[in-house]
Amino acid sequence: MSGIAIGQAGGPTAVINLSVIGFLENLSSNRPVYSVMNGYEGLAHDYIVPLQGELIKRVHRSRDLPGACLGAGRFPMDEEKIEMSVRNLAKKNITTLVFIGGNGTMAALYHISEMARKLNIPLQVLGIPKTVDNDLAETDHAPGFASSAKYVAYATRDISYDLAAMSNFEQVRVIETMGRNAGWLALAAGYLKRQEQEGPHLIYVPEVSIKKDRFLEDVGNAVKEYGTATVVVSEGTVFEGQGQVQQAEVKGRSVLGGVSFQLKEMVNESLGYFTRVEMLGMNQRSSSLAVSAQDRQEAYEIGQMAADFINEGKTNVMVSIKRGPGNIYQYEYSAVPLHKVAHTGERLLPYEYLYETNNYYEWLSPLISTDYSQVNSIDVKNDFFSFGGIL
Amino acid sequence: MSGIAIGQAGGPTAVINLSVIGFLENLSSNRPVYSVMNGYEGLAHDYIVPLQGELIKRVHRSRDLPGACLGAGRFPMDEEKIEMSVRNLAKKNITTLVFIGGNGTMAALYHISEMARKLNIPLQVLGIPKTVDNDLAETDHAPGFASSAKYVAYATRDISYDLAAMSNFEQVRVIETMGRNAGWLALAAGYLKRQEQEGPHLIYVPEVSIKKDRFLEDVGNAVKEYGTATVVVSEGTVFEGQGQVQQAEVKGRSVLGGVSFQLKEMVNESLGYFTRVEMLGMNQRSSSLAVSAQDRQEAYEIGQMAADFINEGKTNVMVSIKRGPGNIYQYEYSAVPLHKVAHTGERLLPYEYLYETNNYYEWLSPLISTDYSQVNSIDVKNDFFSFGGIL
Repeated sequence: MSGIAIGQAGGPTAVINLSVIGFLENLSSNRPVYSVMNGYEGLAHDYIVPLQGELIKRVHRSRDLPGACLGAGRFPMDEEKIEMSVRNLAKKNITTLVFIGGNGTMAALYHISEMARKLNIPLQVLGIPKTVDNDLAETDHAPGFASSAKYVAYATRDISYDLAAMSNFEQVRVIETMGRNAGWLALAAGYLKRQEQEGPHLIYVPEVSIKKDRFLEDVGNAVKEYGTATVVVSEGTVFEGQGQVQQAEVKGRSVLGGVSFQLKEMVNESLGYFTRVEMLGMNQRSSSLAVSAQDRQEAYEIGQMAADFINEGKTNVMVSIKRGPGNIYQYEYSAVPLHKVAHTGERLLPYEYLYETNNYYEWLSPLISTDYSQVNSIDVKNDFFSFGGIL
Repeated sequence: MSGIAIGQAGGPTAVINLSVIGFLENLSSNRPVYSVMNGYEGLAHDYIVPLQGELIKRVHRSRDLPGACLGAGRFPMDEEKIEMSVRNLAKKNITTLVFIGGNGTMAALYHISEMARKLNIPLQVLGIPKTVDNDLAETDHAPGFASSAKYVAYATRDISYDLAAMSNFEQVRVIETMGRNAGWLALAAGYLKRQEQEGPHLIYVPEVSIKKDRFLEDVGNAVKEYGTATVVVSEGTVFEGQGQVQQAEVKGRSVLGGVSFQLKEMVNESLGYFTRVEMLGMNQRSSSLAVSAQDRQEAYEIGQMAADFINEGKTNVMVSIKRGPGNIYQYEYSAVPLHKVAHTGERLLPYEYLYETNNYYEWLSPLISTDYSQVNSIDVKNDFFSFGGIL
């Protein structure tokens, strides 16, 4: 019988392993199952192994662990590697390929599918979404994001209370979140804010560039009014007329990070407040303490659904979460064409969330707080945020 | 009737507010209660207000919040300010002073008590311990530390799983923890390690200086053997023959931080691995998601006990946690003289914990994992750590 292969690609999340487990536990066929190790690198270089023995034990041990139990990572694909990938699968008589990943992963899957068609090699292809940035197109959200958003919300709330206690020693903290092009995570920083004097006082997202003068004025005003200023900035945010700040370039991919240090220097130089940078780092995509119950559930379900779609013979699609209308959280899974995901581009924060953050927090609430009833019972009030360059 | 004043000083913790609440809820007298706002600064500058109205509401809202609900912060005391403090209390007929803090706070309390004696002003003085570094003398541990240790343990475990998934993209992460002179927090990073290949692979503490050559050799070996290296370093750790790395000096106090960046540069230059720094930052002392149930309980109880000691007329003492012998966690509270706390100096990791980390993790286990039974049921195996410059 022909085989099925599954892999994980890109940056991992705190719940990505549950999608592998949900998939495996819902496969109804007796077809042999393979693991593509270390993401697309393993696919191109034929590191494709039977999912059995020690490896399957590792998968099941990873149920509550972050990272990617099959290995993931980054690997730039080109036409040659895509053809190698397709031939590696054919060599092992693998006719179904499933990958868990984000935008780049879905685009690569689409090209693999096209290549197989061109080479006349039968290949069923299916994508399972994961993201922490929430920039994935054609789905309401994807597993991984909710836990990261919860992490950012709690970290910001907690750090701002800590700062308020230290106002005679330090006045400003600049918290840097992930988010290359989209500000979903950075904006989640305000989710737990309940009173005007609490942080975060300022949030900067990649969708809106920072005006330096306005930034300094806003920080100065916040310190005058509240004693401290908690500033949140997404790693991909730019100063007006400038490019993104990168800390390194690895294998052709720019590693962002450091805009917070530039903001810190500006505050130190112009306002003289002692300012500390808080890079939330890899904890925001991997913290097992911040995992949301709803996110866990959806990560598992979306894997199950992928197995159903495979059993039904669907191909060239990604599993997508569609949210129902109304105030009660309802959602269902559907299949969206991979080429649409690949061609739609990154999903940015919509205007109505940026300008009325309450709309965003209402959308966010069921994803991160179904296990926190005290959050649900409080009105989210945050219309006092100031966005750099907008208000 | 003469009054009682309570204040918080130094860096806050995730549970420090529970000590205030425990104290207030157990005071049996009808004496008026005051809050010293913003730590010793408020004491010296007479920002001492009745603990009532909006302020008492704020205290009770802070039960599950980090930071310090009465304000804390850093303020260098000298003889003049100590005399001002004593006179400010006398002016308001406050004859009992309670402060929650660490080593510096206890030393200042001792000097305040001595000054009152010299000036012939009646003053009952009592200290409630708090710490995240666990460097406080004359107590087994103090509230705040256990939650921070839990945070560091989970963050390190999670970040190392995340890194393992990314090994084709980045190979080394250097995690920097708090700990000016003592490595309790940094060493807690290995608490959840269950297998040799898991991180952390190397831990550096202030008690042992780093040998540069040996460090590079150990990182290289870890990457060769496990694919990645997760390195943990305490902010106060020094290179052999050098001083501590500081990022700033504020009000005469050096703010440590940055030794991780030096380690990163060394790895980049000498080994060529892409290396990322993870500064755990203020989250490690304030994360409400990482609060340990035992730590919460002790923070409250130690406040209660302080009220008992006040009612009993004890003075010039700090409440201390004494641990009973044997494998079952048993503890009791006692009173230790402030002058002993002030003169004993910072409590470093003992030799038997540094050289046999299992001993340390057994000591640590009831403090951070009573709410995590899955942790208790697993043998802690970690004798494969390598300490910089030791093994």
